[in-house]
Amino acid sequence: MLNEIYEQPEVLERTILAESSKVRRLADHLKRREINLIILVARGSSDNAAQFGRYLIETTTGIPVSLAAPSVFTIYKADLKLERALVVGISQSGEGSDINIVLERAKECGAFSIAITNNANSTMAQIADESLLVHAGPERSVAATKTYTGQMMCFYLLASALAPNNIAINKIPTFVNNTLELRSNIQNLVDRYVFMENCVVVGRGLNYGNAYELALKLMETCYVVAERFSSADLFHGPLAVIERRFPVIFFAPNGPTSKSNLLLSERLNELHADTLAITNDPRIGSISTCSILLSDEIDEILSPIPFIVPGQILAALLSEAKGLDPDKPRSLTKVTKTI
Amino acid sequence: MLNEIYEQPEVLERTILAESSKVRRLADHLKRREINLIILVARGSSDNAAQFGRYLIETTTGIPVSLAAPSVFTIYKADLKLERALVVGISQSGEGSDINIVLERAKECGAFSIAITNNANSTMAQIADESLLVHAGPERSVAATKTYTGQMMCFYLLASALAPNNIAINKIPTFVNNTLELRSNIQNLVDRYVFMENCVVVGRGLNYGNAYELALKLMETCYVVAERFSSADLFHGPLAVIERRFPVIFFAPNGPTSKSNLLLSERLNELHADTLAITNDPRIGSISTCSILLSDEIDEILSPIPFIVPGQILAALLSEAKGLDPDKPRSLTKVTKTI
Repeated sequence: MLNEIYEQPEVLERTILAESSKVRRLADHLKRREINLIILVARGSSDNAAQFGRYLIETTTGIPVSLAAPSVFTIYKADLKLERALVVGISQSGEGSDINIVLERAKECGAFSIAITNNANSTMAQIADESLLVHAGPERSVAATKTYTGQMMCFYLLASALAPNNIAINKIPTFVNNTLELRSNIQNLVDRYVFMENCVVVGRGLNYGNAYELALKLMETCYVVAERFSSADLFHGPLAVIERRFPVIFFAPNGPTSKSNLLLSERLNELHADTLAITNDPRIGSISTCSILLSDEIDEILSPIPFIVPGQILAALLSEAKGLDPDKPRSLTKVTKTI
Repeated sequence: MLNEIYEQPEVLERTILAESSKVRRLADHLKRREINLIILVARGSSDNAAQFGRYLIETTTGIPVSLAAPSVFTIYKADLKLERALVVGISQSGEGSDINIVLERAKECGAFSIAITNNANSTMAQIADESLLVHAGPERSVAATKTYTGQMMCFYLLASALAPNNIAINKIPTFVNNTLELRSNIQNLVDRYVFMENCVVVGRGLNYGNAYELALKLMETCYVVAERFSSADLFHGPLAVIERRFPVIFFAPNGPTSKSNLLLSERLNELHADTLAITNDPRIGSISTCSILLSDEIDEILSPIPFIVPGQILAALLSEAKGLDPDKPRSLTKVTKTI
């Protein structure tokens, strides 16, 4: 898992290089079709990448995005009206059987389809009208890391090609590279969490998918029961479970969500929660119990990939510190077939 | 909370009676506008009702539905292309400030808007082009119960008016009434869970929103850290946290999701999980550690309202058994203002 985490700058650069011109052609085609709805279909880590993709596409292109409910197609066999929709399937292996059924059914309902996958020869790549490839090489760890950020990069490429304004995607691999140097800081933190059994992971907007993803990594590799919320939803009910010393891990990039992040940390402070901030806002670092501080050069729109990286490292190191093997999660296999 | 749970059959009947003709006129108007996308905007329990509404509308009408990400409008100020969209805000009080901003912004982007609310004079009812009212009377408990099922009923009315086929909505109040009689069965179960601190709540398809809602009730009233998943997603990672005697509560109605429900219970059995099934499928009852058995007359499409009721009763009784007051959850207020 740690090796694959460290491959990420390379994977991201390879993906930008290999897919940029294809994605521009694809965007021209989508504009001609006057696509007015984008539906994302995924499960597991890929679904967390899709959560990110949703915020990115809506905020940069203005096209409404929906995260599909696969069972609407697979179990209830609904016929949706999708003549002007783009359906995007996201799957590392391209062999998630229910995702592939959704893609097939969506095509029958008139949608244009794209596969985002790490496997150019997969069933999904064959079903979809076009593929965007994550150039991650084989992913051996059950806990997805480099394919998760690679899928996010595919969303950046797609949004950038569809949006009126350019996104400075090329900066991301360097940001990730710099973030990887935080390993010894994170190693110093890890001992404090060896007996953690529960926590809540919080993120908002572009980093909402990261909250789900870090929670999933902690469940898969550390058997920590990790709740995940947007900071807005946390105030609707779940806040009741937060008591003195309850651990809350949260993503707090500097940018449009700063005000909301700051309010959340103040409220958690009042409740005496035990907070770990992944942030590049020194104000938030200073009022949190612990923090992992990233570079202040990272704009919020570019934050989701570099910000998940310390979370991945934390999960891998914490798993080891707990005497577990992050590469052998119990009860899980790499490719999950949903019935 | 228990009193309000017991008001539900009446609230549902009142809502059907008062809103049916309005909703039919509204549906005619929406058909003339050729609405091709429905966006639902909500937080907390109302968002769980929206989850249900999403499955119901897509499977019965074929119109794609998206659950809005409010911060796309409120924090990132995106301009979405919504000329042929219907935006539905769902809020008990109608005073959720960020939901109201989304409704206003969506109208500016060209969408037609509906408010589903328990408060005819609320800000939300004034902003929206039309309102569908939940006739629940004042809800005093912080934990929403009758307004949650009332909102679900508004979705039934809307879907029924937009769909080609009729839905037998009128049967629901009687099903709920019969389910309320399970109280003594549930009381007998509750002691077993007095020391439960964590659990996972699982539901799929039309009952996926219920999984979120029951988890929220358990967090709000019992301070149980309750994870929620679709049974499909549970196999992607989270399954690793399930070990011998880990409590899993799941909704398993008889119908299209039967096969998936049965597979899940078998898998949980193999893992020696401690399962509590809310079901009307005797096969699932027989292989679960405990079960709450509802009438087999309840078709899956009509199951979500009667199936949440034993969950509500469980949360209220468990809260008492834990020595807590379900009507006074710590750190929470009835109306939540999101910033």
